[in-house]
Amino acid sequence: MKVLVIHAHPEPLSFSSALRTVAVETFGEAGHEVEVSDLYAMNFNPVASAADFGERAKPDYCVYALEQRNGVETGTISADIRYELDKLMQCDLLVLNFPLFWFSTPAILKGWIDRVLVSGTVYGGKRFYDRGGLRGKRALVSVTLGGQEHMFGSEGVHGPLEGMLKHLLQGTLAYTGLDVLPPFVAWHVPYVTNDDRVAMLKAWRERILSLEEETPLSFPSLNDFDEKLYPLRNKR
Amino acid sequence: MKVLVIHAHPEPLSFSSALRTVAVETFGEAGHEVEVSDLYAMNFNPVASAADFGERAKPDYCVYALEQRNGVETGTISADIRYELDKLMQCDLLVLNFPLFWFSTPAILKGWIDRVLVSGTVYGGKRFYDRGGLRGKRALVSVTLGGQEHMFGSEGVHGPLEGMLKHLLQGTLAYTGLDVLPPFVAWHVPYVTNDDRVAMLKAWRERILSLEEETPLSFPSLNDFDEKLYPLRNKR
Repeated sequence: MKVLVIHAHPEPLSFSSALRTVAVETFGEAGHEVEVSDLYAMNFNPVASAADFGERAKPDYCVYALEQRNGVETGTISADIRYELDKLMQCDLLVLNFPLFWFSTPAILKGWIDRVLVSGTVYGGKRFYDRGGLRGKRALVSVTLGGQEHMFGSEGVHGPLEGMLKHLLQGTLAYTGLDVLPPFVAWHVPYVTNDDRVAMLKAWRERILSLEEETPLSFPSLNDFDEKLYPLRNKR
Repeated sequence: MKVLVIHAHPEPLSFSSALRTVAVETFGEAGHEVEVSDLYAMNFNPVASAADFGERAKPDYCVYALEQRNGVETGTISADIRYELDKLMQCDLLVLNFPLFWFSTPAILKGWIDRVLVSGTVYGGKRFYDRGGLRGKRALVSVTLGGQEHMFGSEGVHGPLEGMLKHLLQGTLAYTGLDVLPPFVAWHVPYVTNDDRVAMLKAWRERILSLEEETPLSFPSLNDFDEKLYPLRNKR
């Protein structure tokens, strides 16, 4: 299996960075091939703009998705996007490893999503959810946060974490056709003991070693909607 | 009233940019004072990093929120953050105007959130939701998207737009104490007729002129939770 780990933490000594290291080691030990994009170390540009396209389909007015399709077709899309897109298309499992910033990804990782998940290749027209361009691959989110688990139950102050992450788990990863595994969540990281952190690294290692037996989360299927995306009367 | 419009679209001729222009004109006509941060035009840096701090509380290990507090207290936080934070703290209404990218904000706007909503001033400890640092101010999201409204109903393929935007409406804006108004949504923008777009600009103008009568959305209150953020038995 080929694994692509996208890592996005500003502090190289962070616990999130330790999760990245454990992931690389554990996937490697298990015989998988691992690539890492360490977005901070790469100084990755997160800003989607017309500068991403060497040649423009519409020079006077930038429709970003249209230029993504044109840029891939003509080979004129920015080299950093092409490089990441190649790694993405070759992987079997995409791991997003990051600290929760405002109940979402750090901007540098949002920019990887904005720029690398290109229209045409990854989605487009009716190619989304279970018809998305990345179907057949899997995705796993690994997130660190300061909050505690009880703040995120259905009775918790923030509601379920999966609800806060719906834009990412469903709207981004499942949207592209990826089979999305339940997130790995390291709770309350800055406040727990070192022993707790060691235990979390061990749990992460065990999780990684048993990923192949896991069942992905459930998301909408286009089979339940008509051509104009109105719901069909008799859902599965 | 002082209004701060944060605008984030890569194409100056976009419909989103027209919404920005209508907002500036209409708030101005109504006698309000308007500031605009056009993040693409400003070439705003969206990457939260140790480089944001001229002086470090912990030079060897960057805890971003800790350094935000230290940077504000010592006046050594990056000048671009300080400038945006001053505008934010002076405003009565914050408008986020952007195209929906992956059911969220473009990365450049996520970076404004990551860097400008500083710990200490905007939130921190038990200062969040209805005890957040921005309470007394209001927020309005104005978003353009390609999708159609029926794709976002409770029976729609994506579920309610407010669910996709929970990380932003609740997890970011309401979290800081802002009273969050229902989003203004311009549906299906690239595919509708010019007359439809003119009608949306008119609806936006009318919405702006009647904002003061609007009731904010409902979000959690810390009054319903105990000191450790476990739910109290008898909610309001």
